[in-house]
Amino acid sequence: MPQLGFLHGRAWAALLGQLRRPPGAVCIGAVHSHSQGQKSLQAAEATLASQLKPHKEKSNFIIKTPKGTRDFSPQQMVVREKILDMVISCFKRHGAKRLDTPAFELKEMLTERYGEDSGLIYDLKDQGGELLSLRYDLTVPFARYLAMNKVKKMKRYHVGKVWRRESPTIAQGRYREFCQCDFDIAGHFDPMIPDAECLKIMCEILSGLQLGDFLIKVNDRRILDGIFAVCGVPESKFHAICSSVDKLDKMSWKDVRHEMVAKKGLAPEVADRIGDYVQCHGGVSLVEHMFQDPELCQNKQALEGLGDLKLLFDYLTLFGIAEKVSFDLSLARGLDYYTGVIYEAVLLQTPAQAEEETLNVGSVAAGGRYDGLVGMFDPRGHKVPCVGLSIGVERIFSIVEQRMKTFGQKIRTIETQVFVATPQKNFLRERLKLIAELWDAGIKAELMYKNNPKLLTQLHYCEDMAIPLVVIIGEQELKEGFIKLRSVASREEVAIKRENLVAEVQRRLS
Amino acid sequence: MPQLGFLHGRAWAALLGQLRRPPGAVCIGAVHSHSQGQKSLQAAEATLASQLKPHKEKSNFIIKTPKGTRDFSPQQMVVREKILDMVISCFKRHGAKRLDTPAFELKEMLTERYGEDSGLIYDLKDQGGELLSLRYDLTVPFARYLAMNKVKKMKRYHVGKVWRRESPTIAQGRYREFCQCDFDIAGHFDPMIPDAECLKIMCEILSGLQLGDFLIKVNDRRILDGIFAVCGVPESKFHAICSSVDKLDKMSWKDVRHEMVAKKGLAPEVADRIGDYVQCHGGVSLVEHMFQDPELCQNKQALEGLGDLKLLFDYLTLFGIAEKVSFDLSLARGLDYYTGVIYEAVLLQTPAQAEEETLNVGSVAAGGRYDGLVGMFDPRGHKVPCVGLSIGVERIFSIVEQRMKTFGQKIRTIETQVFVATPQKNFLRERLKLIAELWDAGIKAELMYKNNPKLLTQLHYCEDMAIPLVVIIGEQELKEGFIKLRSVASREEVAIKRENLVAEVQRRLS
Repeated sequence: MPQLGFLHGRAWAALLGQLRRPPGAVCIGAVHSHSQGQKSLQAAEATLASQLKPHKEKSNFIIKTPKGTRDFSPQQMVVREKILDMVISCFKRHGAKRLDTPAFELKEMLTERYGEDSGLIYDLKDQGGELLSLRYDLTVPFARYLAMNKVKKMKRYHVGKVWRRESPTIAQGRYREFCQCDFDIAGHFDPMIPDAECLKIMCEILSGLQLGDFLIKVNDRRILDGIFAVCGVPESKFHAICSSVDKLDKMSWKDVRHEMVAKKGLAPEVADRIGDYVQCHGGVSLVEHMFQDPELCQNKQALEGLGDLKLLFDYLTLFGIAEKVSFDLSLARGLDYYTGVIYEAVLLQTPAQAEEETLNVGSVAAGGRYDGLVGMFDPRGHKVPCVGLSIGVERIFSIVEQRMKTFGQKIRTIETQVFVATPQKNFLRERLKLIAELWDAGIKAELMYKNNPKLLTQLHYCEDMAIPLVVIIGEQELKEGFIKLRSVASREEVAIKRENLVAEVQRRLS
Repeated sequence: MPQLGFLHGRAWAALLGQLRRPPGAVCIGAVHSHSQGQKSLQAAEATLASQLKPHKEKSNFIIKTPKGTRDFSPQQMVVREKILDMVISCFKRHGAKRLDTPAFELKEMLTERYGEDSGLIYDLKDQGGELLSLRYDLTVPFARYLAMNKVKKMKRYHVGKVWRRESPTIAQGRYREFCQCDFDIAGHFDPMIPDAECLKIMCEILSGLQLGDFLIKVNDRRILDGIFAVCGVPESKFHAICSSVDKLDKMSWKDVRHEMVAKKGLAPEVADRIGDYVQCHGGVSLVEHMFQDPELCQNKQALEGLGDLKLLFDYLTLFGIAEKVSFDLSLARGLDYYTGVIYEAVLLQTPAQAEEETLNVGSVAAGGRYDGLVGMFDPRGHKVPCVGLSIGVERIFSIVEQRMKTFGQKIRTIETQVFVATPQKNFLRERLKLIAELWDAGIKAELMYKNNPKLLTQLHYCEDMAIPLVVIIGEQELKEGFIKLRSVASREEVAIKRENLVAEVQRRLS
């Protein structure tokens, strides 16, 4: 995908460009507080304080964000927004509409949708009225939306926060509050066409973000169920055993087998038979190989799954991404609602050069087909087949942050184009009049909130914040109808006519 | 502000342009579901269903969003994003950095910050661990962030959802979950300079959004406290009486007076004296008039407040917005944390033409100075003075939605540029290969997820969704190395060389 790489690469290069200090912008240390003091408001505050906790009580008051959550600083926000913009532009390239749903749902909407993970849902306190829970993902709210509005067909994306009460292992980029970027296609269509597009989207995003090499593992819930059936797993244990298989990316087969036998009561010989299957992975040739399995081919579900995977690989080849995709029988995906093809993208190496610390980020995108979920919300059980994917942007942010830390990259957090300065005392009124003119012309402008700031302080701020232009108002020049315009990078100053200021600034910025 | 109006107007016109159906794009009714059926997955679903609620239990299962919340459809999302883009671009024009904080905070961070409104905070259920509450506004999290990170100076904006357990009166555009757009300036500066900029920002945004005429009411908590003091209100009742005054925009003075006397135990003659003050409003001349009040001028706080307001009006005149601002002694603002200047913008008339239904939207922006809040979070009580504003985008959305409803405006919810169609049976593989080429070139493209779609259905979809171009692949043309490119608006078709397709599409779209 050379053009695509170029397109994304350009956007990404723009971010990296923004990360680096522009030439001529010398870091002279942070501009410290210029406090001259706000007019005293002590009296008003005394009244306020008298109604609030006395000061001494604060000693055992620890100021922090809740466990597993964090603030995002302006530096982090710049990176996050660039990454989200790239993801969203890909979703739009594939014709998706944007949707948004509330942060919380009726508790009963989420109950029994997530299998073993349901205990991780945040419930709201019963304060009278409905029982509510914070959303756990964006998929269940989407299915609820489709059923509630009787929408039979929709291609939508949704970017938003979700909440899970996981033990946060922050080193791995896992938080209790995190952002998801979901793309889903709902509707009755011919097999594997939307599914193949979902994999194409994952490839486009991961290539575009230039995170290094990646692989997408693919499997099918029907093949797994077929395997469980032919291995002799009782049907009532399918979900529990599927959950165990799902742990193969973090645990050895030995440990997973132990869980199946000791904790989930599976016969050891059944576990061993499963082991023979779920340790297989390969390309489309493995699909062909599985078709030769005499037992499995007796299983209707497995046969359907294999047929669809074969078709999927055919479409992936047409999309030019088959070599990025591996059929992996150990992939199970924890969530209960999947019914067909499932997939998960993993990074194959640490993101950049050898000098970087290794950051284990696990999977960076995942998804699958869930044909039963909408029907569970519909009063008459009408089904709307769906397939979709979720980009693990939180993990991607971690990689990029790590990379920036390694390279000591800096980020511009403001977009200010012009600073309005003066060397003169008592020139605030002139500065205010002038900056309003710039703002009204749509120019991004700042000034110092002081009556008599020092010129050097003003210029240092511009250099530190990489603001390209400074307008300098002086008494003498103003009398003569002129004003100085300074380029921060070159430190050159030119006198221009006061009335031409806006036009000249616009010319230089364009 | 002609340039500004133009600048914003252009952006707004772009939205309105998007609202209208492009010429030649004929509405031929919704494209209905093309179901041919997904390959049967009944077996897998049967397994799934067996583990979930049986179907018959669903009868008393009402599918809805929680009280006071709503989904945003793709149409609504387009409008919301346009409005948010305008607001954010104004914040950036004034040099603000973006910040984000978690949706919930430790409960104790929010306790006692909101006065009478504290009962509206959503608490999370105690599931072991910390006691948490959903954020009630973006101001308290900002103050917490400053204190926690020992930030002494910052100009930031924050766009995010907040939650309040209010009785939802949806007709007024009030919800329990709503979006806020906040801009705040923290730091020790000379008086009224950042405060004046906040009012300038409110004017720029409200002018830019073209919602009709508006007025910004200004007052000062110190003046109100001074009035309460000279009228003889006991200091312990200042907050309670302030809350009553705050209701003057919704209740008559008679009813507010009744609340003060009957519910809050104020002496009737004290209430009457307050009434003489809080029914006054005017321009800067009222400030001068108040300076003549012999009793009030004995009150240090009131005098400080009046002095600041005089300075503020001076700066507003320099910014060219003094005529948009009224000194209104009835303005009190409910929140506890304000310590100085407070303000609130109201629309003066229904948004557009007379044929529109009147929509009472109340205030559309508000804010003020809160110099004590950060110090309450700081273990040593170090203060960071702050002033800021919040744009009531939810109410602005309601106005725009109402306007669109009145004019029957339609919105394009996708950005698709090219549709890949075929009149041929069994041409899916060719379509898939071709569309991947378009995607990889960064072109927004769609196709129908069917093996053999009807050409008419495909073309109708393009007209309905206002997709400008259609690539039509036919067997004969393809053999000869050609492909058809159709303009949806003019219905003209031209044959172009297969290998020139991407370049030609890019040329036509640019």
